[in-house]
Amino acid sequence: MSVLVVGSVAYDTVETTAGVRDEALGGSATYFSISSSFFTRVSIVAVVGEDFRSNDMDAFNRHGIDLSGLERRPGQTFRWAGRYMTADVNDRVTLDTQLNVFADFSPTLSPENRQQPFLFLANIDPDLQLDVLNQMTTRPRLVALDTMNFWIEGKNRELHGVVRGVDVLFMDEGEARSFAGEFNLVSAGKRILSLGPTSLIVKRGEHGVLLFKGESIFAVPSFPLERVVDPTGAGDSFAGGFMGYLAATGDLSDAGFRRAAVLGSVMGSFDVESFSTHRLNSLNISDIYARFRAFTDLTNFDPLGEGESLT
Amino acid sequence: MSVLVVGSVAYDTVETTAGVRDEALGGSATYFSISSSFFTRVSIVAVVGEDFRSNDMDAFNRHGIDLSGLERRPGQTFRWAGRYMTADVNDRVTLDTQLNVFADFSPTLSPENRQQPFLFLANIDPDLQLDVLNQMTTRPRLVALDTMNFWIEGKNRELHGVVRGVDVLFMDEGEARSFAGEFNLVSAGKRILSLGPTSLIVKRGEHGVLLFKGESIFAVPSFPLERVVDPTGAGDSFAGGFMGYLAATGDLSDAGFRRAAVLGSVMGSFDVESFSTHRLNSLNISDIYARFRAFTDLTNFDPLGEGESLT
Repeated sequence: MSVLVVGSVAYDTVETTAGVRDEALGGSATYFSISSSFFTRVSIVAVVGEDFRSNDMDAFNRHGIDLSGLERRPGQTFRWAGRYMTADVNDRVTLDTQLNVFADFSPTLSPENRQQPFLFLANIDPDLQLDVLNQMTTRPRLVALDTMNFWIEGKNRELHGVVRGVDVLFMDEGEARSFAGEFNLVSAGKRILSLGPTSLIVKRGEHGVLLFKGESIFAVPSFPLERVVDPTGAGDSFAGGFMGYLAATGDLSDAGFRRAAVLGSVMGSFDVESFSTHRLNSLNISDIYARFRAFTDLTNFDPLGEGESLT
Repeated sequence: MSVLVVGSVAYDTVETTAGVRDEALGGSATYFSISSSFFTRVSIVAVVGEDFRSNDMDAFNRHGIDLSGLERRPGQTFRWAGRYMTADVNDRVTLDTQLNVFADFSPTLSPENRQQPFLFLANIDPDLQLDVLNQMTTRPRLVALDTMNFWIEGKNRELHGVVRGVDVLFMDEGEARSFAGEFNLVSAGKRILSLGPTSLIVKRGEHGVLLFKGESIFAVPSFPLERVVDPTGAGDSFAGGFMGYLAATGDLSDAGFRRAAVLGSVMGSFDVESFSTHRLNSLNISDIYARFRAFTDLTNFDPLGEGESLT
């Protein structure tokens, strides 16, 4: 099955401990779509300006991403500038945001996109997220939503409204605590699952993710890397791997979600190895399989057999 | 096989988000010995003052801990006072330290203790740790050492000296970075393994532990708890479960170390559920087995089969 992502395509100026890049391809829909393209067919709904470079368009095309929903409008592409103080994605300072054509982004879905079976609402205004959800003529098999503190604080009621209608919610640790009004992460997770979603992914940056699904909690560590170049896009690359796997297999069981969370972690770990989308672009499927196996090595231990003694 | 721990027995005054406790039983040797007593025979070498309470002595005796190496000396027992700003063990402020009888602690091992096959050098002056190691008439099968920033900064050369002679090193994340002079944790781990130890446990508080052993890295998440009462002793309870398992089974393989790290995490997770040693004292072996199984549920996912496709 295929996936639709509604989000941003941007030019990012990023400063990390590894260096600086000016106006490199970024945005939530970019990272998500390239990441999920390794597993399934992806369609983008987003907007770019007249300045959007043809070689960046080529990058999407090389991954076979459906760009029929990518609008080109008069004006400049969305720009973001930020600095990472450490290699941790959460340790970020935003230096500049220029919404440009993204300021008037009002996605209208094509008849085909209104019937997509998997939908990812990337981090945009909750009013737009709800509007997209309402445009779906068939309720997708799975809807996932990402958000951030800006909306939790500024559009809390609207965010609650759309969260009620989604299946999977992505938040970082601080956002989950803030949205739930609970410092303890287990309590926060339970509270959030009472608000509508059946699953919650808590993103903990260099400490991995927690997946809450019904009564079950699944922990995935982040992959130990000797060199983290740029954490930008790690969360959206994770979401791309996660949703891409679920859409490809249609396996929405607990076991399917666990594998999806590992594959998401695989894709996030590749993303941070380079600036922009360079590492994702250079991947082949055998790299992905090898790292999935490396996650098994990283976390595997012998379970306790029935009647077995530990002493 | 049995374990010897050389460390502190203390009275701790602790303030956490859950409340306050005055002069409760604590100290590295206390948490370590009670934790490991569930798996194997433990002997303590430590010192207490004349004020040491008989009911605290009873607590050790109830766990069958060998106290022949516990000196009682004129003066007061070691006292520590601290405050935790959050539920994370690393988020701690020391308010007061009174070394008391611990100031002149100069452990002399009995002939029996000099032949112990498993030795844990808890966080004390590296000169004392080396002195203890030199007293061993038979090289133990496994020597583990815990330390802290105070010694990394103040007695760096001496610490390097003793670290060269141990098998397993315990450090928290910041300490590992500082000791290795490397911010990246994978690089720090490799560097530390080049200094003598064959294994390194990096303690990450509420984010679990990383075990470096040879070329392998194993990640254990912390157990998701709805209520963390007092993080004091989590690291030593971890070490107690870890060493206790290895001593009980004698399994020093990679698989054995992985299970030991999980069992350490089990014991650390119980410890933080109460002030002082209350939760550890009330445990029975079936609680421990149940939580070990819960760690399997927390981390388990289906590995990729040979030739299996992810899409």
